[in-house]
Order: sequence, then structure tokens, then C-alpha cells
Amino acid sequence: MSKPIPDAYPTSPRSELKRAPERGRTDRATVHAILDEGLVAHVGFATGPQPFVIPSAYVRIGDVLYLHGSPAGRKMRQLGKGIPVCVTVTHVDGLVLGRSALHHSMNYRSVVIFGSARPVDDLEEKKRVLEALVEHVVPGRAAEAREPNETELKFTRVLALTIEEATAKVRTGPPRDDEEDLGHPIWAGVIPLSLAAGDPVTDPRLPAVEEAPSYAKEYRRGPSPPLE
Amino acid sequence: MSKPIPDAYPTSPRSELKRAPERGRTDRATVHAILDEGLVAHVGFATGPQPFVIPSAYVRIGDVLYLHGSPAGRKMRQLGKGIPVCVTVTHVDGLVLGRSALHHSMNYRSVVIFGSARPVDDLEEKKRVLEALVEHVVPGRAAEAREPNETELKFTRVLALTIEEATAKVRTGPPRDDEEDLGHPIWAGVIPLSLAAGDPVTDPRLPAVEEAPSYAKEYRRGPSPPLE
Repeated sequence: MSKPIPDAYPTSPRSELKRAPERGRTDRATVHAILDEGLVAHVGFATGPQPFVIPSAYVRIGDVLYLHGSPAGRKMRQLGKGIPVCVTVTHVDGLVLGRSALHHSMNYRSVVIFGSARPVDDLEEKKRVLEALVEHVVPGRAAEAREPNETELKFTRVLALTIEEATAKVRTGPPRDDEEDLGHPIWAGVIPLSLAAGDPVTDPRLPAVEEAPSYAKEYRRGPSPPLE
Repeated sequence: MSKPIPDAYPTSPRSELKRAPERGRTDRATVHAILDEGLVAHVGFATGPQPFVIPSAYVRIGDVLYLHGSPAGRKMRQLGKGIPVCVTVTHVDGLVLGRSALHHSMNYRSVVIFGSARPVDDLEEKKRVLEALVEHVVPGRAAEAREPNETELKFTRVLALTIEEATAKVRTGPPRDDEEDLGHPIWAGVIPLSLAAGDPVTDPRLPAVEEAPSYAKEYRRGPSPPLE
């Protein structure tokens, strides 16, 4: 990772990979695709020596990761102060079954982001972010949902985290057993994993029996359309 | 959460839920079921004010969460010093589509753990943990895999994190739209999500065409058998 990479996020000692650096990527295309497919980010911050890792909904717009939460939550209160934050998004793509116990692994894609957040106070920006968040999670939904009104916008807290540094890490492919283990007489390979959607469950408070829209019935999680 | 809960993990100000406390659980049965179903934990720690959140394989045995990694990684080096650590495991169970943008949500189960870790140096304990880890990820596999030898055990780093405090958080069910939004004329409900396994992909280095074992062909992610 010492050669310049076109359209890459910067790194520094805090974001450089110490382990398996050959799996590292910093180009925006890879980083953004992983972020745009994710539903939950794990948001880390510290108060004194005590770390906290809180799951959070998010949406990326350009080089900014927006986080949503309640003003009462610890995450929003602490991060709004602009303290350093680390946000990680991980997809597990498969279980890697080697011949030896130690060559069991997982295929995965992860992104680790470093930056600091600012509260979003402008109501128009907040509204745009909340719509983008709905659209990120369920493409096609934002146009139909009832828009947030001014009171709701005021009471909702949104944080904007500019991505200062980001490192993606990707493992793909079969097990990497040592040559001398290839004769160990068991099956070896990969069990692919993915997030699958089931049949939509209609809200019991829906007045009439109504079919779910196609964006719900045919929901498939993949990268959502990029927002720039 | 002020009433005593049978067989519950303790909490303190750092682990008490500030937001939606009605979703909180601290009983071991709930906490353990969520941990035992998970594949990846997000491990948080701080060096000075700088937080890090690193995805990690893990296995729970009793009240101890074991983490596995390379001695070269930042996570293992820092955590081996016994600094405070926060580990979070999250399952996304569904997407909640309300009528209003702000009542979009997710059904999820998460556990946030606080404690500190110690390096596992005893080779027998390390071996037991590595076997448990393989079995946690793919039940049925540990008995077949080639066991770690002494050299491998020496070069593998395992950390033991005793769970000092733990809080689970669970959201289930339909959207919670306000009464006045129930007339908004769109479908509302939940898109269930789960981790699905595909057909096993055989390692190209397997000498003969061999069928995958049933634990791979019929892999379904659910809570793995508890290890006490």
C-alpha cells in the first residue's frame, strides 16, 4: 500500500493494516461498494479509556457517512462533540473449511473508517439524509413514505462523519491449506453465505388486505444505488 | 432494569441503555443465544482518544468470549495488555417499513459486552478454544479437521475476555407508526432477513470429486450448541 492508488482514501499508521496487508484496499470504488451494501455499521468511540461499540443505521453520500439516532442515546451525545470515531462495516460472504483447524477462515469484506462527526443542524440537510437513509435500506421506498415534518426533524439527531481515512479488507476464494495437509482425507471448500429476504409480513394495522410492493416482495440485498 | 433478573449479567452506568430501555435484556439465556448464533464480533478498544473497531471471529464458552487472531495484528497486541474492551455482536432480522419515513426501523438482536482480555498461553486451553471455534462456526466440523500441532498453537494468539457486563437489545414486530399516519395509503410491514447458505464450493485442490458433507450441504445458521 505504499504506491499511490488512483482515487484512494488516505491512510496513516492508525489505518494501515498490520495483518494480511495483501487483503487491503483503499480505492473509493471498493470502499463505497462495501458501505453501500451494508445495513448496520458498528460505531466505536471512547470516553477516557472505556471503548463503546454501538450498532447504527447509516447512509453514505459522497465521502460522508451519516449516522442516525435518538438524541437520548450515548452515541449521539458523545459523537456530537467531535471526538475521534471509528466505524466498521462487515459482510460475511462464506465459511472457509480447510483441512486443518487453523486454516478454517471466513470470506468477508470489511471497511474500517476513521474520522470525526459533526451534528447536522440544518433541517433541509437532515431531511435529505433521512430520505437517503430510507432509500439506502429499501430502494424505492423513500418516494412513498410520509415525509418528516418540521417537529420530527427537530427532534431527530443526525451526525455527519467525513471519511478521513478508510481501509477495506477482502478475503475471497478457497482454503489455503499447507501442501502437507492436502492428503488429509476430508472435504474442503467454502460454504457461501448471503443475506436473504423472506416473504414480507404485512402490518396487522393495515386496514385492507394489500399486496406488498415489488420492492418489498423482490427485495435483494446488494449495493444500493450510489448517492453522490 | 432495576428489578433483579434471574441469572442476569450485571450492568453499570456504562452498560445501561440510555435509549429504548424497554428493548433491553441482561439474562444469560438471551445474551448467550445471540452470541452463539453470531459469526463475527466487532471488537472495540482505544489507544488514547483513538478508538478502533475490528471484526473478529469468536466463540463463547461459559462466561468467557474467546477471540482469535494473528500476533501481528493491532487488536491482539493491544488487547493482550488487559485494556478495557467492548465487543458487540448484531443480527439484522428484518427491515421495518412504516408509513412515515421516521418510523422505518430494523428488527435486530444485539449484545454489547464490557470486560478486559487476557492472553491464553496454556497450549491445552488454546487447543480447546480453537476446536470450539471451528465447531461454533460449522457444527460437526471440529472432529474431522486436522488438529493444530504444537508449533501452530505456539504461533496462534488467543484472547480470553471474561464477560463482566452485558446488555442485549432486541426489536421485533411491525412498524410503530403514529395513529394519525395509519391512513397514509401505502403498504407497511416487515421484510424478514436471515443469513442463507448456498451450495458448497469444493476446493479445486481436492484430489478426487467428493461430495460435501451434510454439515456443509445442509448448513443453516442458527444458535450453535452451547459450550459451557
